[in-house]
Amino acid sequence: MKKFLLFLILISTFSFAQKTLDRVEPPFWWHDMKNPEVQILLYGKDIATKNIELSDGIKIEKLEKVENPNYVFLTLNTSEIKSDQFKINVLECKKNVGNYNYQLKNRKSNSADRKSYTSSDVVYLIMPDRFANGDEKNDSRPELIERVNRAAPNGRHGGDLQGIINHLDYLKKLGVTSLWLTPVNEDNEKSYSYHGYAQTDLYKIDGRYGTNEQYSKLSAELKSRDMKLIQDVVTNHWGISDWIIQDLPSKDWIHQFTKGEGKYGFKRSNYQTSTQFDTNASDIDKKTALDGWFDTTMPDLNQSNPFVLNYLTQNSIWWIESADLDGLRVDTYPFNDKETLAKWGKSITDEYPNFNIVGETWMQTPPEIAFWQKNSKIGDIENFNSNLPSVMDFSLFFTMPKAFDVKDTSNKSMLKLYESFSNDFLYPDINNLLVFFENHDTNRWNEIFNGDIRYYKMAMGLISTVRGIPQIYYGSELGMRGNKDKLGDSDIRRDFPGGWKNDKQNAFDPKTQTASQKDFYDFTSKLLNWRKDETVIHTGKTKHYVPENNVYVYFRYDAENAVMVVINNNEKAQNLDLDRFAESLQNYSAGKDAITDKSYQLSPNSKLNIEPKSILILDLKK
Amino acid sequence: MKKFLLFLILISTFSFAQKTLDRVEPPFWWHDMKNPEVQILLYGKDIATKNIELSDGIKIEKLEKVENPNYVFLTLNTSEIKSDQFKINVLECKKNVGNYNYQLKNRKSNSADRKSYTSSDVVYLIMPDRFANGDEKNDSRPELIERVNRAAPNGRHGGDLQGIINHLDYLKKLGVTSLWLTPVNEDNEKSYSYHGYAQTDLYKIDGRYGTNEQYSKLSAELKSRDMKLIQDVVTNHWGISDWIIQDLPSKDWIHQFTKGEGKYGFKRSNYQTSTQFDTNASDIDKKTALDGWFDTTMPDLNQSNPFVLNYLTQNSIWWIESADLDGLRVDTYPFNDKETLAKWGKSITDEYPNFNIVGETWMQTPPEIAFWQKNSKIGDIENFNSNLPSVMDFSLFFTMPKAFDVKDTSNKSMLKLYESFSNDFLYPDINNLLVFFENHDTNRWNEIFNGDIRYYKMAMGLISTVRGIPQIYYGSELGMRGNKDKLGDSDIRRDFPGGWKNDKQNAFDPKTQTASQKDFYDFTSKLLNWRKDETVIHTGKTKHYVPENNVYVYFRYDAENAVMVVINNNEKAQNLDLDRFAESLQNYSAGKDAITDKSYQLSPNSKLNIEPKSILILDLKK
Repeated sequence: MKKFLLFLILISTFSFAQKTLDRVEPPFWWHDMKNPEVQILLYGKDIATKNIELSDGIKIEKLEKVENPNYVFLTLNTSEIKSDQFKINVLECKKNVGNYNYQLKNRKSNSADRKSYTSSDVVYLIMPDRFANGDEKNDSRPELIERVNRAAPNGRHGGDLQGIINHLDYLKKLGVTSLWLTPVNEDNEKSYSYHGYAQTDLYKIDGRYGTNEQYSKLSAELKSRDMKLIQDVVTNHWGISDWIIQDLPSKDWIHQFTKGEGKYGFKRSNYQTSTQFDTNASDIDKKTALDGWFDTTMPDLNQSNPFVLNYLTQNSIWWIESADLDGLRVDTYPFNDKETLAKWGKSITDEYPNFNIVGETWMQTPPEIAFWQKNSKIGDIENFNSNLPSVMDFSLFFTMPKAFDVKDTSNKSMLKLYESFSNDFLYPDINNLLVFFENHDTNRWNEIFNGDIRYYKMAMGLISTVRGIPQIYYGSELGMRGNKDKLGDSDIRRDFPGGWKNDKQNAFDPKTQTASQKDFYDFTSKLLNWRKDETVIHTGKTKHYVPENNVYVYFRYDAENAVMVVINNNEKAQNLDLDRFAESLQNYSAGKDAITDKSYQLSPNSKLNIEPKSILILDLKK
Repeated sequence: MKKFLLFLILISTFSFAQKTLDRVEPPFWWHDMKNPEVQILLYGKDIATKNIELSDGIKIEKLEKVENPNYVFLTLNTSEIKSDQFKINVLECKKNVGNYNYQLKNRKSNSADRKSYTSSDVVYLIMPDRFANGDEKNDSRPELIERVNRAAPNGRHGGDLQGIINHLDYLKKLGVTSLWLTPVNEDNEKSYSYHGYAQTDLYKIDGRYGTNEQYSKLSAELKSRDMKLIQDVVTNHWGISDWIIQDLPSKDWIHQFTKGEGKYGFKRSNYQTSTQFDTNASDIDKKTALDGWFDTTMPDLNQSNPFVLNYLTQNSIWWIESADLDGLRVDTYPFNDKETLAKWGKSITDEYPNFNIVGETWMQTPPEIAFWQKNSKIGDIENFNSNLPSVMDFSLFFTMPKAFDVKDTSNKSMLKLYESFSNDFLYPDINNLLVFFENHDTNRWNEIFNGDIRYYKMAMGLISTVRGIPQIYYGSELGMRGNKDKLGDSDIRRDFPGGWKNDKQNAFDPKTQTASQKDFYDFTSKLLNWRKDETVIHTGKTKHYVPENNVYVYFRYDAENAVMVVINNNEKAQNLDLDRFAESLQNYSAGKDAITDKSYQLSPNSKLNIEPKSILILDLKK
């Protein structure tokens, strides 16, 4: 009897799940949000032909139907709902054919005022599939198509959230303070799914990474270590296998084409995002840039459809609130409809005023990047305000390999760095730039410089001491190499050594790091841990000096403190005449090397010796 | 007796000139200027110890003495002076020891509302010493040190104003509409004076070029041909032999140094003009950039000294009014004290609201150049407004050789041009940019491209059809070559063939042009004369298309007209699918080649064939 009852429950669950109410999104919400409205998507076979009623006399503010009868959108005013849960009932001829127990949870205290990542942080970028496999049981999942295959460069390798959790102490010791994971939502494409940028379920962690609960656990474990979690958000496109994409609410949910293969046609983006601000751009180029698909498996979302915008906005808020996030990173930011994404950003920062969001502003030059930062005067030329607090300093990223280029024998290459920072005034919030020399889409720095740690030290020292938020990429700290141009993405996304049981080498453990790994790691760890308390690095001003003899000198300073940074990109040691820096050194007489702790006397007429191809970071002392 | 009287007059003139009143500047002024005040500099031995009185009861508003007793500055309010002349009397113990007949002239009608050069013009840059020798009698002058020596690459070659006047019909026929002459004021340095940028008398045309009267004649001759005269103004520095520099009114008239050779010490500018906007710049670098001398013979003026500013302002107005100028070009603009130069620009444009002034904004990138244009939003970030109407598009200048680089085999180099124009929105007045591919300080285009006229046609066609004011450099139209990097400035400043009597070849006369010169000339003349009436090129909008197969296509258009420009930088002919340009071609069905007059049918589904390495400029027809 008991078994029979269970069977009945199962088939009834099964039947309504299949037929009348497959999905409810967001699956729950919260009391006391600043914006009291929530728009709930109901999905089920012909649900638009049914009646929807809420229990407890709760009012539906607005019920909207769209082209596809399998969708209904309910707008509720949560400020009028006192109970913590209510029922959504689907009725057909007064018969209940489906229901859902909708919860309104209480927010954690000070949720709205949560802090976020800032220039006091160092961001560590992880591709979860490639970092560490903490749970072999979830390497493949019955409901997910692509199965583990570590031998395949572009396959699923089995890394997961538990793997990250297992190594938080390693990361803490390394000195990083924030984790940015490439997307961890379900990406159930048939192949090449490990990168996660073709998401198929926006409310669910990919089963091969773990569960929503495990994601929350990671967030909590990070918080207990005073560390932060940044979620990678993809607003521009979803995976072709996404359940909504497979049964579109309306044709205009995505950008479709009459030509090209596939159900929706296909046109590839021209990737020419300068069309977003270029007043000379042709309509067709702009349309191709924005509406064209990023790739064949990535249908381009039409963010200007208000349901799409609302879906994206609520989804982000849902994750912030439910996984207690500390920040967001937005993929392919300039490929989005910019006015709509500005609304998205405003909604989120209205809800969380201190919240930081960085956009992947993959543009060439400072004004083109500054255009995208909140309150930009460059954007203002076109009456545009992105509401995006942070942007990525791709200009510095492109400049760095040129500035350190071993083939540049002009002895003037440091001028390129100097001139890159000369444009800082174009940014409305100079401390809120992400600074980096590599990420999951670029060649590895240590590949470009052929394993020469001196170049790593200069680059790492640079991004750790200039304005902005340094971002490193898993393995940077070991001198990991990878050549995207020659060997493709998989080569820059190698497995972290020691992340898998029976790996022949474990770089997580200092005792088993190779000598080379240890050199990279020790430098990085010392530097980043030193940076943690250096408020002058986090928020101080910058003063820099025109490079001479390929030595670039800059100071970070505030009323209390100062740090002097000297980068000698010359193959010869240099003797710096300190006189020239009098305006920065006037209150200081000595300096302490941030890496070696060695003391330097810095009397006005003295010289400062700096080794070839090296960086010297001095905490100045009075 | 008569002779004795003449002798007495002569020696008295001579004696006061030497002793009590050597100089009066400006030497005359005008009634009815918008700014009624004029500040008159009086220079003479110990003049500050004498009394100064004006005839006819005219009031001295302000009499100012400075450190050097040889100077007195009188400020007069011309609105209160009705007579056309009055006497400035220098008195010592009530004895008249010097006097000067000061004239207040009447302005030509509509002087204040004079038109200026605009995007409807084409500017032709001439180095007068190197263009044509119209008067051999002035090749050397007794009062000027450097004598003619045509055999010396850096010597005086004898070109002059009369030489230019003699060839105005050639220039008119070529299709240029405005002349910019490198400075023609006296440059009495001992050597290397032909470039004129180390001026020694700001109120006098260099005797080797001619006279002030001849300069006015040139201006009038130009006007009679509907052409314009642009004066090159050097506000940043004067020549070390300038008479004021030789006897400074005050120490702070120029920037002096305790170190370095010479009377005033010497420090070379670091040429790092990014310090003008760089909020990270150190004080010492900024000071070195702005106060350091441009060269050893060029003392750096302290424009923040109000007497200096006023001197510069009045001098410019004096030339505009006295030589009936149509515009100015300001040398080394970003090396000046920017706030002071903004006042200078405002004074001039307050006086002449339509007047155009272009600054030599030798910077790398669009925002750095846009910073300097009047009403710039980029400048506004730092609350700066230059009041400078026009800037030079050095960004395009730097981009062009890269875009056409024969070594670039990516077949994507045209994208560089496209991206350069993508930043147009940063400029407050996009039509008021000077566009050019060579000038007196750069390698010759035809040298870079080894005499291949196809590259000249593409470059010349480009600058003649994009937004802005095209500027060519004397000899561009003949394919003149010159390699500054290898052979120095003199090689890019070769004498115009036929400018000198007995030159073995005369390129001014089409009949004696070489075949190659004729090819260059005919193309240029046809193009520039076509451009004259193309208002859509002067003021139309631009629409451009992302280059494909290294073909760059753009349209200039307004409500009435359109021009289509196709640049094929591919070594293969290309067949353009016109469908892609439907939004620009929708009102047009044909086009007429601006160079060959050939007609093209442009039906929607047709293809347009374009030759390898060529430019096609089509006047579109309905």
